[in-house]
Amino acid sequence: MSEEQNIVYIGKKPVMSYVLAVITHFNTPGAKNVILKARGMSITTAVDVAEITRRRFMDKLQVDNIVIGTEEMKQEDGSPRGVSFMEITLKLQ
Amino acid sequence: MSEEQNIVYIGKKPVMSYVLAVITHFNTPGAKNVILKARGMSITTAVDVAEITRRRFMDKLQVDNIVIGTEEMKQEDGSPRGVSFMEITLKLQ
Repeated sequence: MSEEQNIVYIGKKPVMSYVLAVITHFNTPGAKNVILKARGMSITTAVDVAEITRRRFMDKLQVDNIVIGTEEMKQEDGSPRGVSFMEITLKLQ
Repeated sequence: MSEEQNIVYIGKKPVMSYVLAVITHFNTPGAKNVILKARGMSITTAVDVAEITRRRFMDKLQVDNIVIGTEEMKQEDGSPRGVSFMEITLKLQ
């Protein structure tokens, strides 16, 4: 499995659609971890996705690593703006 | 310094008021770390506080640990509801 396939980008969809994406991923053979990537206000959703998946659906799922940082983005007028991001790595025990 | 004093609870105030609280804390003698605690939508603000403090004001500040979890809260009708929380520990290098 290539590196890109185990990333779930969290955006503005309902939380449960990302939970479903995570569960579906872990149902593919050989899947051992998944990375949730979120920026800005979606960071809260990423934490909800991790917690709901772990508590309601997959009790063997663990938070392996959490990284936060800042991504430089260009505003409409071309000036740079820092946007916080978070990456949560989930793995099967 | 007691354990409680190095916790900054993140809520709905502007980001910079929490950044100021963190900087003020690290200016007290003996302060080596601070824990940002946030629930629900304030989780995004907590990440912003950590990133802005580190990048703009204190370049020796590091993210030491990040914990996520779920807190059981009671709704108005008494039924339980899970709310995601996050704790970011910042420390001086």
